[in-house]
Amino acid sequence: MAESTSYSVRPGKGAGATVGVALLGLGTVGAEVLRLLDVRGDEFAARVGGRLEVRGVAVSDLSRPREGVDRALLTDDALSLVKRDDIDLVIEVIGGIDYPRQVVNAALKAGKSVVTANKALIAAHSAELSEAAAKSAVDLFFEAAVAAAIPVVGPLLRSLAGDKVEAVMGIVNGTTNFILDAMYNRGASYDEMLAEATELGYAEADPTADVDGYDAASKAAILASLAFHTRVSSDDVHTEGIRHITTDDIKAAKAANSTIKLLAICERLKDEEGNESVSARVYPALVPLSHPLASVSASYNAIFVEAESAGGLMFYGNGAGGGPTASAVLGDVVAVARNIVLGGRGPGESTYAALPIADFGSIDTRYHLDMEVADRVGVLAEVANVFSHNAVSIKTVRQEGLHDGARLVVITHTAKEADLDRTVTCLKELDAVKEIRSVIRMES
Amino acid sequence: MAESTSYSVRPGKGAGATVGVALLGLGTVGAEVLRLLDVRGDEFAARVGGRLEVRGVAVSDLSRPREGVDRALLTDDALSLVKRDDIDLVIEVIGGIDYPRQVVNAALKAGKSVVTANKALIAAHSAELSEAAAKSAVDLFFEAAVAAAIPVVGPLLRSLAGDKVEAVMGIVNGTTNFILDAMYNRGASYDEMLAEATELGYAEADPTADVDGYDAASKAAILASLAFHTRVSSDDVHTEGIRHITTDDIKAAKAANSTIKLLAICERLKDEEGNESVSARVYPALVPLSHPLASVSASYNAIFVEAESAGGLMFYGNGAGGGPTASAVLGDVVAVARNIVLGGRGPGESTYAALPIADFGSIDTRYHLDMEVADRVGVLAEVANVFSHNAVSIKTVRQEGLHDGARLVVITHTAKEADLDRTVTCLKELDAVKEIRSVIRMES
Repeated sequence: MAESTSYSVRPGKGAGATVGVALLGLGTVGAEVLRLLDVRGDEFAARVGGRLEVRGVAVSDLSRPREGVDRALLTDDALSLVKRDDIDLVIEVIGGIDYPRQVVNAALKAGKSVVTANKALIAAHSAELSEAAAKSAVDLFFEAAVAAAIPVVGPLLRSLAGDKVEAVMGIVNGTTNFILDAMYNRGASYDEMLAEATELGYAEADPTADVDGYDAASKAAILASLAFHTRVSSDDVHTEGIRHITTDDIKAAKAANSTIKLLAICERLKDEEGNESVSARVYPALVPLSHPLASVSASYNAIFVEAESAGGLMFYGNGAGGGPTASAVLGDVVAVARNIVLGGRGPGESTYAALPIADFGSIDTRYHLDMEVADRVGVLAEVANVFSHNAVSIKTVRQEGLHDGARLVVITHTAKEADLDRTVTCLKELDAVKEIRSVIRMES
Repeated sequence: MAESTSYSVRPGKGAGATVGVALLGLGTVGAEVLRLLDVRGDEFAARVGGRLEVRGVAVSDLSRPREGVDRALLTDDALSLVKRDDIDLVIEVIGGIDYPRQVVNAALKAGKSVVTANKALIAAHSAELSEAAAKSAVDLFFEAAVAAAIPVVGPLLRSLAGDKVEAVMGIVNGTTNFILDAMYNRGASYDEMLAEATELGYAEADPTADVDGYDAASKAAILASLAFHTRVSSDDVHTEGIRHITTDDIKAAKAANSTIKLLAICERLKDEEGNESVSARVYPALVPLSHPLASVSASYNAIFVEAESAGGLMFYGNGAGGGPTASAVLGDVVAVARNIVLGGRGPGESTYAALPIADFGSIDTRYHLDMEVADRVGVLAEVANVFSHNAVSIKTVRQEGLHDGARLVVITHTAKEADLDRTVTCLKELDAVKEIRSVIRMES
């Protein structure tokens, strides 16, 4: 059962009350949120039952010109702003972890509801922040933290609250999707396409969070937490990025009628005794061209949910950008403001299930291997032996001649990740194997 | 602004309180809901913060055997059941309109929250029921009324509450989708495929609600109401079914690299002066094979939402069946029960925008016409004249010889529905036109 702290009742300010809003951050998303709070003010008042009034905007650099923004609202002291008596609701769109963590904590402790788009913050510190929100009986909402405007936090938290979610899988990072797409369609290298993505503004100056999979891992942690009512933090997510994807991998994908996508995968697992655990992982994988995820291109995101009663569901849309992120932030703002006016709280973190995190080596995966081997008698047998000694069953094998050797493409059956990993290590040690060109997991 | 009655605050029963549940109806969905309330009882208690206890089940025939159901719970007096003091939450899965209307009204007036899967009831009597719910400060939730387990009511009501929805379009009826698919793939007639759908259980003994588009119209009314914050009832929805779809229509679709789908379309319109109105309509239309909706087959549903900030979103999944419908019902049940324990109400009907319903004739559509004309000089000019006299611009025309005449396939540009309709009437009066084989709208 959940802790009783989660269930304190909060009275509303009453119908017609004005909700004081503090906006933290005035970048692309912040500026759009501020603009729309004005433009859609009457609509929001009708939906909430009381007006939203922006009473302060925290920025890091007060001297920068901010067109169309009332300078009297600006402050560089977010910590003082969120504690002010005339603030009921705090919107955090600063980004980063340590500073927003401090400010959001202060806001929650001061009894202010918080809406954030900060996936890294939620994935790393959900436990602490949720506890602070529960203690103050306020809301901490974060729909924009995963896949921007695509409603997925809400559906997992509310619509699927009567179901048993078995798996969540999707493409949740637009930058890597753009790069992988461009590599696939134009045969270019990772470095070339990263440079282009940076130039076009798809990738940030420091692309680490995107290309190394950390952004997707934050989202996977959030999705897994919601789906399985278990606290999953970004540290629990096995994370591989796309830096190592080569043109050989892309060629291998094409030959297999597949494409390569960076996937976030959250699964509920069950061992032979019926004990459940959860896995959350991020890695690039082959996806058959016939699979709906294969056609998700550029900055689009798509998320599949498999639930016991609902069956398969898919959510698709813009996964990034100022407008789509503002849409998600404002959806939360309206809901939270409504609770401030009416009383009550939305559903927050629910971690009663507290399932263990499965060891990555125990996960079932499939490998696609493309290697160059010596072209002599007995090589195939040697290679096949390595697989069978490691308890990995081969599904298909294709051999073709090369100028001075042979190419061997092996697709395995589903096997334990640890066994597959060990198989690759052993193959590398084999004299008959000249080069392992590409090792990539397969999903379907 | 919304009426103040919508904003009364309701206190909760308190953490750990038991929520008394009355289930009305024990058909496929009802039986599955009852089973899952038992099987997932511990999970739901943790999610709600208090246990759900089924305290009565209303059925129409008490004498029928009900395996695994505690007979002491059964009653054929739903009206008395919903008013009982030990009932907090009523689940209505009876179907029909008049009887559930009476019972749901009684429940709401007695201060019980209601979860219903009844699209016809909500589409016809949302105004009256929402008012009753608001007066008692209880919840009236109906996620299952549209597209079963696919979260779409929740996303429109909550996730997109900060956005401006421009359009909602989708396939929301599995029975007609099955029949049209089968006609397309097997070249069979409507009557044959309806018979098969009935035999397989996809269509009911009386298929009127499905094949004449009424079921889709109810869903369109609900979607339009939520999307545009305007009361749209099923009577406001221009509705055409699929009974008139012929094998000639299917042939025309194939020739146009398209398929035929029964679409529910909800649009926000704007006239030259900037005055907004809304349109909700249901009709079969040509959908290009390359469009994502074209590949939605059998009992699957898909719903596109276009919003100003979010851009395009798609929701896809099982649109019918006991499990998916139970999933949606139980998601609502958990949310409503949480409000009963914690206090507060979820967002209900929001009709402050009160936009006018656009006249169907003023809607922009496109027609695809397939006709047999006389093969003589001047026919094309005569036909083209009819279009231009009615202010309809032709996009493409294709003529081919027939045994004793010519076949003319015309695709129009977007034009007013009334002008297109009048064009067809005039064409029918033309001597040169021997037969109009197929007239069908096009969407893209």
